[in-house]
Amino acid sequence: MRLLGTLNKLSRFLTRTHVQEFPKRSMACSRFEYVKSFEQDDSILPNVWIVIRIDGKKFHKFSKTHDFEKPNDENALNVMNAAATAVMQEFRDIVLAYGQSDEYSFVFRKETAAFKRRSAKLLTYVTSLFSTSYVMQWSKWMSLPLAYAPCFDGRVVLYPAEQNLKDYLSWRQADVHVNNLYNTAFWKLVLEKGLTNQEAEAKLRGTFSADKNELLFQEFGINYNNLPAMYRKGTILLRKLVILGDKSRQAIVPLHEDLISSQFWKQHTEILGKYVPGTYDATKPLPRLVELQLSDKQVDEEAKEPQNLAGIS
Amino acid sequence: MRLLGTLNKLSRFLTRTHVQEFPKRSMACSRFEYVKSFEQDDSILPNVWIVIRIDGKKFHKFSKTHDFEKPNDENALNVMNAAATAVMQEFRDIVLAYGQSDEYSFVFRKETAAFKRRSAKLLTYVTSLFSTSYVMQWSKWMSLPLAYAPCFDGRVVLYPAEQNLKDYLSWRQADVHVNNLYNTAFWKLVLEKGLTNQEAEAKLRGTFSADKNELLFQEFGINYNNLPAMYRKGTILLRKLVILGDKSRQAIVPLHEDLISSQFWKQHTEILGKYVPGTYDATKPLPRLVELQLSDKQVDEEAKEPQNLAGIS
Amino acid sequence: MRLLGTLNKLSRFLTRTHVQEFPKRSMACSRFEYVKSFEQDDSILPNVWIVIRIDGKKFHKFSKTHDFEKPNDENALNVMNAAATAVMQEFRDIVLAYGQSDEYSFVFRKETAAFKRRSAKLLTYVTSLFSTSYVMQWSKWMSLPLAYAPCFDGRVVLYPAEQNLKDYLSWRQADVHVNNLYNTAFWKLVLEKGLTNQEAEAKLRGTFSADKNELLFQEFGINYNNLPAMYRKGTILLRKLVILGDKSRQAIVPLHEDLISSQFWKQHTEILGKYVPGTYDATKPLPRLVELQLSDKQVDEEAKEPQNLAGIS
Amino acid sequence: MRLLGTLNKLSRFLTRTHVQEFPKRSMACSRFEYVKSFEQDDSILPNVWIVIRIDGKKFHKFSKTHDFEKPNDENALNVMNAAATAVMQEFRDIVLAYGQSDEYSFVFRKETAAFKRRSAKLLTYVTSLFSTSYVMQWSKWMSLPLAYAPCFDGRVVLYPAEQNLKDYLSWRQADVHVNNLYNTAFWKLVLEKGLTNQEAEAKLRGTFSADKNELLFQEFGINYNNLPAMYRKGTILLRKLVILGDKSRQAIVPLHEDLISSQFWKQHTEILGKYVPGTYDATKPLPRLVELQLSDKQVDEEAKEPQNLAGIS
Repeated sequence: MRLLGTLNKLSRFLTRTHVQEFPKRSMACSRFEYVKSFEQDDSILPNVWIVIRIDGKKFHKFSKTHDFEKPNDENALNVMNAAATAVMQEFRDIVLAYGQSDEYSFVFRKETAAFKRRSAKLLTYVTSLFSTSYVMQWSKWMSLPLAYAPCFDGRVVLYPAEQNLKDYLSWRQADVHVNNLYNTAFWKLVLEKGLTNQEAEAKLRGTFSADKNELLFQEFGINYNNLPAMYRKGTILLRKLVILGDKSRQAIVPLHEDLISSQFWKQHTEILGKYVPGTYDATKPLPRLVELQLSDKQVDEEAKEPQNLAGIS
Repeated sequence: MRLLGTLNKLSRFLTRTHVQEFPKRSMACSRFEYVKSFEQDDSILPNVWIVIRIDGKKFHKFSKTHDFEKPNDENALNVMNAAATAVMQEFRDIVLAYGQSDEYSFVFRKETAAFKRRSAKLLTYVTSLFSTSYVMQWSKWMSLPLAYAPCFDGRVVLYPAEQNLKDYLSWRQADVHVNNLYNTAFWKLVLEKGLTNQEAEAKLRGTFSADKNELLFQEFGINYNNLPAMYRKGTILLRKLVILGDKSRQAIVPLHEDLISSQFWKQHTEILGKYVPGTYDATKPLPRLVELQLSDKQVDEEAKEPQNLAGIS
Repeated sequence: MRLLGTLNKLSRFLTRTHVQEFPKRSMACSRFEYVKSFEQDDSILPNVWIVIRIDGKKFHKFSKTHDFEKPNDENALNVMNAAATAVMQEFRDIVLAYGQSDEYSFVFRKETAAFKRRSAKLLTYVTSLFSTSYVMQWSKWMSLPLAYAPCFDGRVVLYPAEQNLKDYLSWRQADVHVNNLYNTAFWKLVLEKGLTNQEAEAKLRGTFSADKNELLFQEFGINYNNLPAMYRKGTILLRKLVILGDKSRQAIVPLHEDLISSQFWKQHTEILGKYVPGTYDATKPLPRLVELQLSDKQVDEEAKEPQNLAGIS
Repeated sequence: MRLLGTLNKLSRFLTRTHVQEFPKRSMACSRFEYVKSFEQDDSILPNVWIVIRIDGKKFHKFSKTHDFEKPNDENALNVMNAAATAVMQEFRDIVLAYGQSDEYSFVFRKETAAFKRRSAKLLTYVTSLFSTSYVMQWSKWMSLPLAYAPCFDGRVVLYPAEQNLKDYLSWRQADVHVNNLYNTAFWKLVLEKGLTNQEAEAKLRGTFSADKNELLFQEFGINYNNLPAMYRKGTILLRKLVILGDKSRQAIVPLHEDLISSQFWKQHTEILGKYVPGTYDATKPLPRLVELQLSDKQVDEEAKEPQNLAGIS
């Protein structure tokens, strides 16, 4: 105990000495450095799911400026998906991302020690990389150039139990369903029947899901369930092994499945369990989102690195 | 009191009824909506200065990949300045921004009610808009294309007293001085004398500021104080009235002054006092950073709008 | 929607009017009331176990002043137990309390909505009631009067998973074991062999549990495992149905069992499961801690009230 | 740098070795000790005033049970004052306490480093010591015995600026004025005119201060401003030098002044400035609250100790 104490004192003494090696720095900075003590610890409670949700700022205006197709713009959604894919490639402790409309949720595994679980670090790295990737991916998917810099907000939400996490994701997916069914009917009425926005709104007010399904079928010959799954279910991103002939490669793959059902969680056990990527049974051709990754040299390099990227600042 | 109570009850009743208008939504989402209650309030204490500092992630590697000039790359610094300018244009409650190297600090006025002072909102809007603006400004200043999406982290620090705020900014500016003097000497030794990095490091180890000044003068004929102020002092962004002949226009202007001195605060009283922009005595020609703003139509429109932009989500 | 909006406005208008009914109060207080906005929300994340641990301040000195028996003072421990019992009687959402030495931990069930899960409220109510009950119980157990007001600190710790909670309690119980074995040996050496504190310390330095057990047996004829369970295991308080002939009464009962073993959790399933008190197989005579409750009229009344006491401020 | 690094490693190594000296403890506790990492840092922002306000839980019932005089019970208020005095004696960084009715506010000086500014520590020490002192002081002032353990909640509120702090205290003092004037009139009507509670309430509804003053004067011959200052202004506790002949002694003294006026702050400059106790011009005889301190040996001893008591856990 005493030796230890002596060494600690010696170590503190040397630290002080060491600082005095750079007296000018000391003089220039030292009387101001106390301001660092105003930074407050924001480490997240251990053993909870960390969800970071990103949301477009004023995307109603943004989608108008950039002429998004209504009710869904496949390419604009893919810019979101591509940006989220970039985030998952960089932060390996994200086990699932879920996107719809102008929002994306990222789920860090419960045990993550990335950035010492500091809330602001996790939040801003994810938000910043999503934001810059959105801009950089834009021209790969969109024909109009970006008119101005888009902006996203982000928030951190914590879920202690698996059921809470599943319910969070179900909540977001149920939200897509309600909104997309409404929007599909609304825009059909406006774009094909020539109703004004007000007339379309009035017609849909108070209707149930069944009514809107019926309206789409009767008036437009549309079976809602046959519309693209990405519009109806949003996009789930998972890390999977993509089998390519006799080789396999890790990639972030997009799924458009029903995650409210227990079936989803039985099939993708890697999300909640020991984190070992499952395999991806891709239909040929691969989604462009996956193709871009496999042809991307940078990914190759990263694949060789150990899995601790998230831990390195 | 009783009438009020009745009305409140009625109001609550109508709220409930109103929700029941959309029974399907209710059915689809309601059993999941409890997850919203896991979002925690993060409102910032009133009457403190809110500082948001942004930092480049792994910018050492980033600057190598993009061949930044050493020890300072004027254009790369201007990409930072331009991105920070975009942030100040959008968030009117930012009264000052200060940048150096790969970091930028934004100071919100003490009384700001922007986004209800919610910490994560303020933090992510600033970080996201800075990030996307950095990417969008890149090609205006740099010749090499962006090789990959850059990433920034952000943090919120609170300062209760004016002196704390000044000391914070002084700390950052003293940091530039120490680093830039060292880097200037280091890179002169490496690039012009042909020393290896290790040799240059060894030569500078333990030297005082005076020694490095002397070394620069004796061996390279450089008077450190004549080097560009942006490298020595960093960049202070303020909102000012730019006088153009008989018209004046608000713009974000870059200064490279000594903010550690009390002189700075006497001259720019708008920062700590009632927030009315001072005038900008620009030498002709205007800095390109300002020119770009004045020629930018979007700014024109914004200038007409009332000052509450920050409050609108 | 519009009717609702109108009613809300009307309601707000009446609220304002109502305030103006008391213009003096308005005048006297209104310009100061803004200070309420500095109170910050501290609601605890839902669905986590809330543990509040209380610790005596400078109890080393306190135990000397009040001549506590060494190494354990049965009566002083019972003052702690009685104070903790009072806390559990008042706050029904506490499902378990665990005490040893001068500390006590209280476990609120995961779902508790007591005091809207506000951290400071829960923390201070528990700490305050424990503190005042300690003083009020003192003379029922101790012969010396209280020389001065004792003081306890409290902290809130959150545990997301059952295993975390069990491990927390196991950590505290393992701590008793280590400390009590050491203290038992130490005080035997001092009080019976006449060693000085320093000599006793030296003799025990570096010894293992087995060594201390052996020393107690060889030198003092003591089988450590036969010492009172309260000293070796601490005290677990649970809410149980006490069977008294053909009647049963709820009471807080003390157990001194091994809670590190899984057996404990199998036997007392009410702690982690649906909260229905188990039955208490008391040996006759009942512990005094329980007797005091059963003879206490106040408990009778409370027993008739519904279980929502904790929710009422 | 390298020597320092080596020493740090050595120091860490010895720490580990040191732990292994007690292998049983290691074995018994180590697998559980991770639960400590769930404790979260709650250090308070530097350079803000820390106010802790304590409030009686269900004191309406408590005051009935103990037969408090209406509208003010001088002795019961003095139990509060005496408990608060004990808190100020123990925690030297409290520069002012203000009490009224069943609440007390404690103001720590902005720079306090007591308990490393940990919020829960400060909050619970103050709340606990207040609570136990309340019980211990009870019999010195009250004739009825305590029927049950009282309970207080506490909260921490932070104020960045002097004006905010003054406004906080003014808010509490304005509150006394409004409530006491109302209560004085109310109880006069009930106790002397024989009105029922409902009748008294109805009579006072909608009246202004002036009306109540008038009512007291016209119907009861009472000049409100001549009522005891403690009832009208609450109690301010300050640390002062009490002059006793040719000696002086530090003590906590009660004042019943108007702290809303700037005069108060000019007179007691020690509160906001360098903390040097002012002198107390006591009218003879000294208030009993002060007498009790001066006759208390314990205080004598404490007075000799240096001012760092608050910093010692």
